[in-house]
Amino acid sequence: MNHSEVKRKVEQWGRWELTLEGPSEGNPFQEVTFGARFQFKNRVVEADGFYDGEGKYRIRFMPDRTGAWSYVTRSNCPQLHGLSGEFNCVGPSKGNHGPVRVNLRFGFVYEDGKRYLPFGTTCYHWTHDMDEQLEELTLQTLQTSPFNKIRMCLLPTRDMCPPAIAFAGTCPEDVDRTRFNPSFFRHLERRLDDLQRLGIEADLVLFHPYDKGHWGFDGMSWEEDTFYLKYVISRLAAYRNVWWSLSNEYDFNKNKTVDDWDRLIQYVRRNDPYEHLRSIHNGTKMYKSSMLYDFNKPWITHQSIQHWDPELTTDWRAACPKPVVIDEISYEGNSSRRWGNISGQELTHRFWEAMSRGGSVGHGESFNGMATRAWISTGGVLYGEAVERIAFLRRFMEEGPADWIQAKQDGTYGLYYFGRRQPVYYTLELSEDQRYKLEFIDTWNMTIEHMEGTCSGKARIRLPGKPYFALRVTIA
Amino acid sequence: MNHSEVKRKVEQWGRWELTLEGPSEGNPFQEVTFGARFQFKNRVVEADGFYDGEGKYRIRFMPDRTGAWSYVTRSNCPQLHGLSGEFNCVGPSKGNHGPVRVNLRFGFVYEDGKRYLPFGTTCYHWTHDMDEQLEELTLQTLQTSPFNKIRMCLLPTRDMCPPAIAFAGTCPEDVDRTRFNPSFFRHLERRLDDLQRLGIEADLVLFHPYDKGHWGFDGMSWEEDTFYLKYVISRLAAYRNVWWSLSNEYDFNKNKTVDDWDRLIQYVRRNDPYEHLRSIHNGTKMYKSSMLYDFNKPWITHQSIQHWDPELTTDWRAACPKPVVIDEISYEGNSSRRWGNISGQELTHRFWEAMSRGGSVGHGESFNGMATRAWISTGGVLYGEAVERIAFLRRFMEEGPADWIQAKQDGTYGLYYFGRRQPVYYTLELSEDQRYKLEFIDTWNMTIEHMEGTCSGKARIRLPGKPYFALRVTIA
Repeated sequence: MNHSEVKRKVEQWGRWELTLEGPSEGNPFQEVTFGARFQFKNRVVEADGFYDGEGKYRIRFMPDRTGAWSYVTRSNCPQLHGLSGEFNCVGPSKGNHGPVRVNLRFGFVYEDGKRYLPFGTTCYHWTHDMDEQLEELTLQTLQTSPFNKIRMCLLPTRDMCPPAIAFAGTCPEDVDRTRFNPSFFRHLERRLDDLQRLGIEADLVLFHPYDKGHWGFDGMSWEEDTFYLKYVISRLAAYRNVWWSLSNEYDFNKNKTVDDWDRLIQYVRRNDPYEHLRSIHNGTKMYKSSMLYDFNKPWITHQSIQHWDPELTTDWRAACPKPVVIDEISYEGNSSRRWGNISGQELTHRFWEAMSRGGSVGHGESFNGMATRAWISTGGVLYGEAVERIAFLRRFMEEGPADWIQAKQDGTYGLYYFGRRQPVYYTLELSEDQRYKLEFIDTWNMTIEHMEGTCSGKARIRLPGKPYFALRVTIA
Repeated sequence: MNHSEVKRKVEQWGRWELTLEGPSEGNPFQEVTFGARFQFKNRVVEADGFYDGEGKYRIRFMPDRTGAWSYVTRSNCPQLHGLSGEFNCVGPSKGNHGPVRVNLRFGFVYEDGKRYLPFGTTCYHWTHDMDEQLEELTLQTLQTSPFNKIRMCLLPTRDMCPPAIAFAGTCPEDVDRTRFNPSFFRHLERRLDDLQRLGIEADLVLFHPYDKGHWGFDGMSWEEDTFYLKYVISRLAAYRNVWWSLSNEYDFNKNKTVDDWDRLIQYVRRNDPYEHLRSIHNGTKMYKSSMLYDFNKPWITHQSIQHWDPELTTDWRAACPKPVVIDEISYEGNSSRRWGNISGQELTHRFWEAMSRGGSVGHGESFNGMATRAWISTGGVLYGEAVERIAFLRRFMEEGPADWIQAKQDGTYGLYYFGRRQPVYYTLELSEDQRYKLEFIDTWNMTIEHMEGTCSGKARIRLPGKPYFALRVTIA
């Protein structure tokens, strides 16, 4: 065997990798097929390998069972074909809970059963400039932030001139869509590992409409699109913290129809051996909720929504039995752009409003005139007032049940958020068979005040009569 | 002639009145027809009179032209028939600008040409308890308030037990729908005159769904409904400050269809000699804007809307070329009811948001636990934080052009409201041929800051970067 590198041991949901030497002449990205068949007892998983340049062929695999796995490679290149071996999958290390899955119709859970409640943020192109110092700063910021998911793009925008892109070439004139740039991916992969160490899911945005023909990546053929997707999946699917977001603001891309997106999402599903979470994100033209992508389609795992109105969470839950993630709800900031200038109070309010209705919200920040550029584009430092409130909300929500809407129906927990309303009385309809304790939450000042005593049955509660308050009801 | 009382002189848009003695036996409300034909040169106006109890028959008339008017009565009672006379109409006194009309597609104007910009409030039943002290207190509050319109109901709700109602009788058991209670109306009319003195339009709500069969006024027959409307119009149409709101939350009344309302509104139109403003107000079930009453119907003069979202003003203007008045947008207060507990900041925000889009908003307050009961029900005292901000907004708007949306298009005036957004820069696209001055308005703290210098053409403006700010652009 000409295995140049191979892992003999891997942890569950870790990344096993095998490197082989093979041909470098011609265009190996297009000409060489390469993959492997992995087997655990009777369980068989097929995965694609990829060409990593300089005659190196790699295959990655994320095993989901502990014990002995075997593999055998396949290739149209005899040198890479029919190589077999074994490796041992051991239990996951601390902090490794596996990939995130959908659970409870409206919730998420890591594969090991630990609850996952998304508190996402957005840094679309934080890895593209390959600015080590800035990326380290972003990671530091993330480490102390409440965020456990980040939305990030693979492809550059019209305005960018990055040192490397996913495809070969560095500018629209010399871009070669028949080849990829392995160094772009190696850099990205290092950052995916950094995110994984921080417990952050990478919601990878595979396409976006901000190219407008400049690079041409928004108007590629089916063959080019799937060539790109296949390569991305072969490199990145073995990262357990990866999610697939087929496109950002897909409806702004005039080169593709909903049918095209459907086909591409199904292609990703077929090619991803691990069934990572999959969705697609609408643009502002789809603000009317009835025009959102039909998330009931079976290849969609969760609802990835752009809308400014968190109250519609209730409608979206009713329309589709999949988790609601409002990935863009307007960003805190002082930008001149409509999407990037709501106040921290307003963003905090939208988080509470959506969560109290059973959804999740994505954060973003777009402050101009600061030491670092807009967080949503390049990461860096966070300046807003919402972040610490989101951290408070996350701690608050994690103290509660995984399905707080169901728990409210069952009478075991209640979250009542009053938003811009300021009633002095609220009538709770609680079970007669339980005693409940109450807490008043000032969502802006981040205080929790315990009410003396307990209550039961129909109870008229005196509230502080100020806006941005919530009431938590738990069994005493 | 047996004229017992007659005015020989009346001012334009004032109220001329003639009182005659007639039969009091039987049921004069039903049995005696009475009216008059008024003539000014070739102009002829027919108006109904009414029975005011104790053998008194009155007819009221609001002349719209100065000079000599003649009249001749008609009745099925010979005693009241064929009486004629003349009176002189002189110019209006100070503060009398005539009834409010629709102007400029989206605006209002008094008949004398003075601009009218609605700043309404709501006191549904402030006259029903006939509590002199409380009513005087309400009038005092109104006098120092910014409000120039008040929504008020003619019929009692299920929960009320007032000393008098529009119909004969005082409780559901003895109510007589074939007779009216003149003393109820005389009391009401005194208050309409009080409002007129304060420059306040009375937006009279003729029906409402809060009866629920208790009094039965929400489920009367066509004959009963029109008998009531005819009497109301004959008494009140000559008050120049009256508007007709056919129903509050009409869609909550299960006894009537949209067709029924259409017929009733058309009945009011036919019977009102003066074409007072006419609309109908939806309930919460019509919150989806597409389900609002079709205000394009020709008998509707303006859009009387209940909706919590002021941003929809733009849509409503696009859907129908009639003024937008959001008479209920949620009330400031601390009520447990959803409609009555938004913060003063939120109500202020909704006023600015709707007005900057070319609509008007109605105010209301519902504070519990104060010295007086909820303002929206009984009037009294205002406790909220929005009122003084609405006064500031009214002064601000009255400094601007009558059609500020058109003026913005014409490049002669610009109102930009940023709401919960806080951009630090905003790019104005102004005319190159004008110099403009700019002012920054802090809508909550009620300050106006003038920017030094002037600008022209495309101008990038630095803003304070705080929420609830507006920018005013005027020709320098």
